[in-house]
Amino acid sequence: MAGVPTFATGPGFLGRRITGIGPSFTVAGIPLDIGVTNRAGARSGPAAIRQASRMLVDGDHPHFWTDVGGMAIADMGEFEIMLGDLPGSLALIEQQARPIPHLIAMGGEHGVTLPLLRALRKRLGEPLALVHFDAHADTWDESFGQVYGHGSVFYHAINEGLVDPRRMIQIGIRSPIQRGIWDWTIERGVRIITAQEVHEIGPAEVAARIRGVVGRDAPAYLTFDIDCLDPAFAPGTGTPEIGGLASWQTQAVLRRLVDVSFVGMDVVEVLPAHDVSEITALAAATVIWEYLALLGRPES
Amino acid sequence: MAGVPTFATGPGFLGRRITGIGPSFTVAGIPLDIGVTNRAGARSGPAAIRQASRMLVDGDHPHFWTDVGGMAIADMGEFEIMLGDLPGSLALIEQQARPIPHLIAMGGEHGVTLPLLRALRKRLGEPLALVHFDAHADTWDESFGQVYGHGSVFYHAINEGLVDPRRMIQIGIRSPIQRGIWDWTIERGVRIITAQEVHEIGPAEVAARIRGVVGRDAPAYLTFDIDCLDPAFAPGTGTPEIGGLASWQTQAVLRRLVDVSFVGMDVVEVLPAHDVSEITALAAATVIWEYLALLGRPES
Amino acid sequence: MAGVPTFATGPGFLGRRITGIGPSFTVAGIPLDIGVTNRAGARSGPAAIRQASRMLVDGDHPHFWTDVGGMAIADMGEFEIMLGDLPGSLALIEQQARPIPHLIAMGGEHGVTLPLLRALRKRLGEPLALVHFDAHADTWDESFGQVYGHGSVFYHAINEGLVDPRRMIQIGIRSPIQRGIWDWTIERGVRIITAQEVHEIGPAEVAARIRGVVGRDAPAYLTFDIDCLDPAFAPGTGTPEIGGLASWQTQAVLRRLVDVSFVGMDVVEVLPAHDVSEITALAAATVIWEYLALLGRPES
Amino acid sequence: MAGVPTFATGPGFLGRRITGIGPSFTVAGIPLDIGVTNRAGARSGPAAIRQASRMLVDGDHPHFWTDVGGMAIADMGEFEIMLGDLPGSLALIEQQARPIPHLIAMGGEHGVTLPLLRALRKRLGEPLALVHFDAHADTWDESFGQVYGHGSVFYHAINEGLVDPRRMIQIGIRSPIQRGIWDWTIERGVRIITAQEVHEIGPAEVAARIRGVVGRDAPAYLTFDIDCLDPAFAPGTGTPEIGGLASWQTQAVLRRLVDVSFVGMDVVEVLPAHDVSEITALAAATVIWEYLALLGRPES
Amino acid sequence: MAGVPTFATGPGFLGRRITGIGPSFTVAGIPLDIGVTNRAGARSGPAAIRQASRMLVDGDHPHFWTDVGGMAIADMGEFEIMLGDLPGSLALIEQQARPIPHLIAMGGEHGVTLPLLRALRKRLGEPLALVHFDAHADTWDESFGQVYGHGSVFYHAINEGLVDPRRMIQIGIRSPIQRGIWDWTIERGVRIITAQEVHEIGPAEVAARIRGVVGRDAPAYLTFDIDCLDPAFAPGTGTPEIGGLASWQTQAVLRRLVDVSFVGMDVVEVLPAHDVSEITALAAATVIWEYLALLGRPES
Amino acid sequence: MAGVPTFATGPGFLGRRITGIGPSFTVAGIPLDIGVTNRAGARSGPAAIRQASRMLVDGDHPHFWTDVGGMAIADMGEFEIMLGDLPGSLALIEQQARPIPHLIAMGGEHGVTLPLLRALRKRLGEPLALVHFDAHADTWDESFGQVYGHGSVFYHAINEGLVDPRRMIQIGIRSPIQRGIWDWTIERGVRIITAQEVHEIGPAEVAARIRGVVGRDAPAYLTFDIDCLDPAFAPGTGTPEIGGLASWQTQAVLRRLVDVSFVGMDVVEVLPAHDVSEITALAAATVIWEYLALLGRPES
Repeated sequence: MAGVPTFATGPGFLGRRITGIGPSFTVAGIPLDIGVTNRAGARSGPAAIRQASRMLVDGDHPHFWTDVGGMAIADMGEFEIMLGDLPGSLALIEQQARPIPHLIAMGGEHGVTLPLLRALRKRLGEPLALVHFDAHADTWDESFGQVYGHGSVFYHAINEGLVDPRRMIQIGIRSPIQRGIWDWTIERGVRIITAQEVHEIGPAEVAARIRGVVGRDAPAYLTFDIDCLDPAFAPGTGTPEIGGLASWQTQAVLRRLVDVSFVGMDVVEVLPAHDVSEITALAAATVIWEYLALLGRPES
Repeated sequence: MAGVPTFATGPGFLGRRITGIGPSFTVAGIPLDIGVTNRAGARSGPAAIRQASRMLVDGDHPHFWTDVGGMAIADMGEFEIMLGDLPGSLALIEQQARPIPHLIAMGGEHGVTLPLLRALRKRLGEPLALVHFDAHADTWDESFGQVYGHGSVFYHAINEGLVDPRRMIQIGIRSPIQRGIWDWTIERGVRIITAQEVHEIGPAEVAARIRGVVGRDAPAYLTFDIDCLDPAFAPGTGTPEIGGLASWQTQAVLRRLVDVSFVGMDVVEVLPAHDVSEITALAAATVIWEYLALLGRPES
Repeated sequence: MAGVPTFATGPGFLGRRITGIGPSFTVAGIPLDIGVTNRAGARSGPAAIRQASRMLVDGDHPHFWTDVGGMAIADMGEFEIMLGDLPGSLALIEQQARPIPHLIAMGGEHGVTLPLLRALRKRLGEPLALVHFDAHADTWDESFGQVYGHGSVFYHAINEGLVDPRRMIQIGIRSPIQRGIWDWTIERGVRIITAQEVHEIGPAEVAARIRGVVGRDAPAYLTFDIDCLDPAFAPGTGTPEIGGLASWQTQAVLRRLVDVSFVGMDVVEVLPAHDVSEITALAAATVIWEYLALLGRPES
Repeated sequence: MAGVPTFATGPGFLGRRITGIGPSFTVAGIPLDIGVTNRAGARSGPAAIRQASRMLVDGDHPHFWTDVGGMAIADMGEFEIMLGDLPGSLALIEQQARPIPHLIAMGGEHGVTLPLLRALRKRLGEPLALVHFDAHADTWDESFGQVYGHGSVFYHAINEGLVDPRRMIQIGIRSPIQRGIWDWTIERGVRIITAQEVHEIGPAEVAARIRGVVGRDAPAYLTFDIDCLDPAFAPGTGTPEIGGLASWQTQAVLRRLVDVSFVGMDVVEVLPAHDVSEITALAAATVIWEYLALLGRPES
Repeated sequence: MAGVPTFATGPGFLGRRITGIGPSFTVAGIPLDIGVTNRAGARSGPAAIRQASRMLVDGDHPHFWTDVGGMAIADMGEFEIMLGDLPGSLALIEQQARPIPHLIAMGGEHGVTLPLLRALRKRLGEPLALVHFDAHADTWDESFGQVYGHGSVFYHAINEGLVDPRRMIQIGIRSPIQRGIWDWTIERGVRIITAQEVHEIGPAEVAARIRGVVGRDAPAYLTFDIDCLDPAFAPGTGTPEIGGLASWQTQAVLRRLVDVSFVGMDVVEVLPAHDVSEITALAAATVIWEYLALLGRPES
Repeated sequence: MAGVPTFATGPGFLGRRITGIGPSFTVAGIPLDIGVTNRAGARSGPAAIRQASRMLVDGDHPHFWTDVGGMAIADMGEFEIMLGDLPGSLALIEQQARPIPHLIAMGGEHGVTLPLLRALRKRLGEPLALVHFDAHADTWDESFGQVYGHGSVFYHAINEGLVDPRRMIQIGIRSPIQRGIWDWTIERGVRIITAQEVHEIGPAEVAARIRGVVGRDAPAYLTFDIDCLDPAFAPGTGTPEIGGLASWQTQAVLRRLVDVSFVGMDVVEVLPAHDVSEITALAAATVIWEYLALLGRPES
């Protein structure tokens, strides 16, 4: 008699309960933000992304015609973290991620990606290819004395052999960065497409370069720091940098990655307290929707 | 292994799924706002109230020592309404409310109270006593041509015999009002404590007057329009009026209503788009928490 | 002695009183928002658009050199609507629009366009060509049970013969949509330029396609849903979708529609409670200013 | 046929055009803010106050039963000021105020009160009694080198003989202030009720003291700096001070000033860019409504 | 020639550089927020409080006539913390606080108080008396597994003998709390004045009770959690609870603590991202100003 | 022992104290906003820009590899202005600017540029070349009666021979403008690239045209009105116009001006009260960072 019990199933395509066995995709929030260097508050990101996803549940994807709302997706809620203990939290995140076949993680800060990669590396037994959207290279060896802060994720991911740097590409980079950090990154084999280059060469060429680097066969991971977008499109984030991507550009790139073998993804650094009118949370929810539409497309 | 699946059970004491049979209290959102005369948007109230309730779940009530988080409460989600059809929506709300033994409704506009009272009246077979917090008397015979707008709820409730006007009391009234409407209300037997009177006589005397009017035995309903609070305490509402109550005053009143026989309640007119930093939603969630702590208190 | 009585004439080029007979253009607000499916509050759109128009009154249009502030424009205020009654409101809107020769309507939700087209269809005796900027096709046969919700406007407009679907073109479409709805629309003859296509082909080509579809002679109507813009440019709207148009793109398109025979227009879905720093209202006011500059240009 | 032309008459009880001759009260905005020492932007105050007044037009005042919406009130729009020239602006304001019998001015900064008092002084031929609500004494002899800044208004008003300091009373004072300035003020005969005293003695006693100072016969002026209210009740102002009045307290005081002979009033220092959800503008509009209800009350 | 170099000396009475030796009071920010359980972001509190203090620098305190701007106060900037390591950060804070004679600390979360008390305990060689304004008792033995979270500060302070619980008093308490935690606190000897009691007994009686508990001779510490204020007065905080104190009440209490021997203080839990129009930051700055005016008053 | 005293040196690359003699670049804020015609409040711009600059201090510029944080830059704080006296303020600004070798000024309104150009003209003994980013030509002969308002800066700069109009170029122009004002500007020799042209021709061509007009040898000044950016990228400004530049476009242009002989710059019209999440202030800070990176680049 009563209406749709939206709260039990979530307000959009995110937020569904686990129903039955074998969902193809598992969504989880990871409310970690104790390793950030600038504005804090990304722990509230998952709730905001779920709320914003309510706008995306009805209808098919207008490019792939995927019925994302009809896919087998479970939202298992929030991961546990250890309050005030960054290394402990990273270990706990890895532990929780290990048994999940195909995880779509909602940050939280970018630091969550390191344990997610560790878990996948162990599960798969080989390094991952990496598609990394970000304003920051995140390959610093430390941040203000913290070895595992959100600016050092890929320094560790490369050094620990979690990712294959020759199959790793960064898109949207534009922050201040010490030349030594930049050079170290390039010398490992990582390809960087700066934000200015994205604006110059256009999304089709960006997608072509990504596909060239990542290849068709390697298990690939998508990590999407929402600050790759310009603050006009994503004001709700901790370390904004102007000159960034428009949201349509990231959609145009993602829709062209049809032959990449994605095995997991995350969207991180959504900071709702600095958002306006939910636009950052909506961008994050839409990136997940694009990813699901890509992987669940009828012809695939 | 994974953390508390907050999304399946909701972020606070609100938002729980129905687990097993026989919850003592049922919570539901009623996202109606098509009958309002000023700012619209109260349909988003329930989601905001649930979200704000996350802060109230841990620990006992510091006055009654009720463990509200441990009470048998089910959140059944949102009621259905009929888009663009006010009378149709009211009928549908009544239909959904009928089978629920003790409903705690989250508006939505104040218009939702009329069908809730109709449902209770039919269930109980007698008129209800009414404790009505509001800035507005809501006894207009019509609003801009609409007979069932949110300003006419108690005009109908009295005329339809849903409430006993001699057991009805309004607290916090202060808006402009035609003298004829005021007089009609008083002449029906309704007692009014204006906001200025609340400030002058204090909450203990207000509570005493309420208890005097309502009595111990009559089945009583609490309808709490959040705009009874001053806009400083509740900016997120559709028709604010300055000079209103402080939130501590309403708590001081409610805690003294220990021998009223409440059979249901609602909190209405929370408009999240005009809220700041969740304070209005938190006020609404706290009123529900006070109500549950009162009814579920150990000694009762 | 006293300064410009801005309130009598409005703060900008909108908001003027009717002075004398025969204004060439009549502006009116239509504060309807009871048929929306997501965020409510568009009823406050007209007031915000008028307020934002104060910035556009001094000086000529820098492309057409039209002195918009000097044109014969009357603002007749707000249309009446019927509170809580969508079909009744639509009938009332049509009735008020009928006698107005060239109406520029400020919504309110997109649902207002249906009665405006009905009024024009009766006045003109022939179906209209339609230039439709929007993130959503709005050709659903119903929305959550409501036949006349804001997502069904053009389903009815086509079925009722108000517009000629072969002279109808939609620009900016990008929301989730059931494939069946899309196919129905295309099969009627409607042309769709998605937001991604706008970004790829550029505004000159978009304008060329519009002119090719609409032609020079057919009486044409412009309906501009502000959510065609990306949320970065128009956060203050009810159903935002990322990946949308930049405001400069819509200006670049509109300035090229020099030989379209426009007979009316509307700008809809401005939701001030979600706006930031008036930018959405300013975008809406500027679209009206562009339309007036186009039609009132010296050489035309 | 068309609805109420709200823009010609304004959205509330403010904003009406002058209709015929002889309105009893004339409302005007004075958009001056070039003499403020802290946050600027009060020039936008009048527009916000008018907009907020839309909520107050229907119904009688619930204490005096005055039908404020039916009183003879004209809104003449905005006064002219001279951009970037404070003394010139003050002269121009005085010139515009002179011919107006009973002016209700909406600031703008508090500096506007000086020329309004000058105009009244000349018109009446005698010094005025003054009821002055404020967080600041505004009797500094200069502010950062500016002699006519908004902190020096009453220094000049006393020195120029515009007001009778022995019939002048300040309510709500609490800002930092040099002891010398305080002493100068007291020594002139001005009575001060600090904000802490208002909280201690209550509004009835405050009103009694005001009536004692001002008397029944002297022509009296009410100047209401919105920052007399606590920032919780009036965040939208330029120089907030915590510990201020609640809005209900000011209403309780004003309603008791039934035998004061008011000849004019102003409400100043509303700064909409810092307001939240219109609550400051609504407080300002309500103060005007209280003033009009007091003066236009049936028994008076 | 150039104007006041406000940035070198800070914008208000806070933010001054250390000039010469021997300032009587040292101000420092402690940007810790990694131990909070709800909203994060208090690390940005100190910058906001300094900025808000610009409004308090000119003039004397209107009760004590202290020239706070002329007192010997040094702002030493921000303490270092260890990113992502709560126990490490607490140790580092204690280390930095040790050499400072009279520290006024700006949080940051309430967790900073524990190391500040440890440093003072070691310096003074005896337990401190404690005046504790808060909505929460903060005597939990742990929070979500974290032993040193911001809800356990006074559990440790009592157990470690940093404070004398029989000379400790809490004002404003009102959050949900397990009865066991409450009883433990009371049984240690701590006195609690709930928010409801403050409203009932008034600030003079509150001050009398504080003075009775704390005494004249014991070295006393003031810890002021901004969430003791109602969210209307302090929306910018991490764990708001409705029903709290008005800012004037806390001023009225503090001004009466003239014979308490204060040796240090902190103001914590200001969260600027949730503030509106700086009112929370201004409240925090004003509390520091009250403290300094009290201690630096001419007669003292 | 204590952490970095951020307040003494500022939170970013701006805000440093003068250390030693001979800094290459001097930064100053000019808090003037009494000559603006629309929204006021730009006086608070410098503080917001400094605060936002904290994000830019670590690392090298990723294009020029300049270590901006290591450059010799002094922030001398705020210029004095004369409250309420525009001509007096302009004279005072010129006086303060005269002795500064290479000034980087943070507005404040655009009116500050006139005295800065006067000071430079006297210092250099020849007219300046001018690179002018703006939505408005600012060559009006007066604004609402004010000769020196912020819309007349370049009318005077040309007439007083401060700039060589044949070496002057405006980028981003798009506001309403009287044809006569436009023609006067063009006839003086000024080149204008409208916002629509920037979108059409791209930043490389824009930069080429600028270099062609300005040349390599003439001393050149950069004046950057933040409203050249679209309101999506810079909502926090006084006179926004839609259809503006993206922030990446301005960066792409500035990075190509490698052989222009810049002798000074300003960024003006940042209005923090209308900003969202600091994005406008960050854009302004980044423009200064780009300017410094360009002039301080290793190879130069």
